[in-house]
Amino acid sequence: MLMIRAIVRPEKTNELLTELLNAGFPAVTRLDVYGRGKQKGITVGEVRYDELPKQMLLMAVNDEDKDDVVSIILRTAKTGEGHLGDGRVFVSPVEEAWTVSTGKAGL
Amino acid sequence: MLMIRAIVRPEKTNELLTELLNAGFPAVTRLDVYGRGKQKGITVGEVRYDELPKQMLLMAVNDEDKDDVVSIILRTAKTGEGHLGDGRVFVSPVEEAWTVSTGKAGL
Amino acid sequence: MLMIRAIVRPEKTNELLTELLNAGFPAVTRLDVYGRGKQKGITVGEVRYDELPKQMLLMAVNDEDKDDVVSIILRTAKTGEGHLGDGRVFVSPVEEAWTVSTGKAGL
Repeated sequence: MLMIRAIVRPEKTNELLTELLNAGFPAVTRLDVYGRGKQKGITVGEVRYDELPKQMLLMAVNDEDKDDVVSIILRTAKTGEGHLGDGRVFVSPVEEAWTVSTGKAGL
Repeated sequence: MLMIRAIVRPEKTNELLTELLNAGFPAVTRLDVYGRGKQKGITVGEVRYDELPKQMLLMAVNDEDKDDVVSIILRTAKTGEGHLGDGRVFVSPVEEAWTVSTGKAGL
Repeated sequence: MLMIRAIVRPEKTNELLTELLNAGFPAVTRLDVYGRGKQKGITVGEVRYDELPKQMLLMAVNDEDKDDVVSIILRTAKTGEGHLGDGRVFVSPVEEAWTVSTGKAGL
């Protein structure tokens, strides 16, 4: 099992959640976060912002679904031809998953 | 070492934190999150909600404590005989842990 | 690749983000969290607090940068000679990282 962690623009969250649901991946945990990326801040007028609000999506998936989920995120979270600040995706190992309602292991 | 990540109903958080403390696991990081689970939303009146507020608890534990902590979560976070939306538990590897106050490694 | 997760005092966040940027690590995701540590709460007047607001910083780094980043965090997040509640650092494995704007793998 794997944990996929996507950090994306807030305005892309709804579309991304819809695409994931339609592809058979309804289970997502969503967090409000702040991101400082390689753009090192964006200048708007005279103000320099070092951080921008982002959304983090966490999804536990089986190994064989990883490519599909990563592909959906990369395609959906991109703005235009792709801009700094569109976000990142990280894939990490998960050793065990449990469902509270049933007490059973597995996704 | 392992990281245990529990996503539970907000109304279960206090009881769960108490049970963990009483069992010798005081160290918990708690986050406000939103969860969309396999229930694919819950209908209340005519409104369909695709997401519900949840709480995420993060606990770093030694390998030998994993079964105890997972067992406490599964038992305490369950509502009645268990319902969709009661939450999930994920266990992931941790390679190193450090304590800032002492600068020392380990839990 | 590794994910470094630091849980620190909110009043240390700005200094820590500055130190990380100056050392060549601009990419940080920041979250508001609540921490309950081994202090088991801090007494202020007659009120006992079991949780305190903390900030969590998430940084994906290459293996060879791990020691530098952990060292910056341990040095910067410490208050005085070090106190309970200064925080923790966890290092976890990351199998893949992707950049949304380019669709490319790697940090």
